[in-house]
Amino acid sequence: MQKIEHIGIAVRNITESNKLFAKLLNTEHYKMEEVESEGVVTSFFQIGDVKIELLQATKESSAIHSFIEKKGEGMHHIAFAVEDVNIELARLKAAGFDAIHHEAKDGADGKVIAFLHPKSTHSVLTEICSDKDVSK
Amino acid sequence: MQKIEHIGIAVRNITESNKLFAKLLNTEHYKMEEVESEGVVTSFFQIGDVKIELLQATKESSAIHSFIEKKGEGMHHIAFAVEDVNIELARLKAAGFDAIHHEAKDGADGKVIAFLHPKSTHSVLTEICSDKDVSK
Repeated sequence: MQKIEHIGIAVRNITESNKLFAKLLNTEHYKMEEVESEGVVTSFFQIGDVKIELLQATKESSAIHSFIEKKGEGMHHIAFAVEDVNIELARLKAAGFDAIHHEAKDGADGKVIAFLHPKSTHSVLTEICSDKDVSK
Repeated sequence: MQKIEHIGIAVRNITESNKLFAKLLNTEHYKMEEVESEGVVTSFFQIGDVKIELLQATKESSAIHSFIEKKGEGMHHIAFAVEDVNIELARLKAAGFDAIHHEAKDGADGKVIAFLHPKSTHSVLTEICSDKDVSK
């Protein structure tokens, strides 16, 4: 793992949360992006070299919708930057972790991503990601 | 907020979690520290310029014990490095956030810290911290 790329936070209302996190972080979000395949709309804040990603569900089948139903709003996942998602995924699976995605797939923010199952990571939902061009 | 200083993760058994996170992060924890006033034992991993702090309760009155009873293991808080905890705390309170600590107090890892109440931050437990010498 090279660095923490972003921290994902599940929110009910991204418009309200953009305002609140701008006050908290003392900086405005710099972009918003919908990831239709995941049923989420996202917004990004930059703090040092790490991003905060707010995620709001756009449909009931979204994982963010289920998460908020079960646990309420709050920290949802940690994403680590890796050089190559597929190579790191192979290392993690060999080390005994369960993968949700078995190969890199498109995510927000020009990344390819994969998630590990939180059952194998002491409930810390873990994403690995790399820039799309690097991994292709 | 200058940068994300660390991400706190509540765990049931820090010995087991040290092993698991060493495999996940592909690096060993570099130190452990007990914070008796908080009823926790902590361990630290360095990933890029951000730390992962595992926290295990050492007594039932610890906030980590209550957190795990309610929500289970998992991400517990985000800590942001600030230049001066008391000055940032004043800014945040003026912006409408509720503080758990109304002035900087000693924390782990040579820091002074303060926490905001998660009720005012969409359930994201937020710590601000600075190096002890800077703030004194």
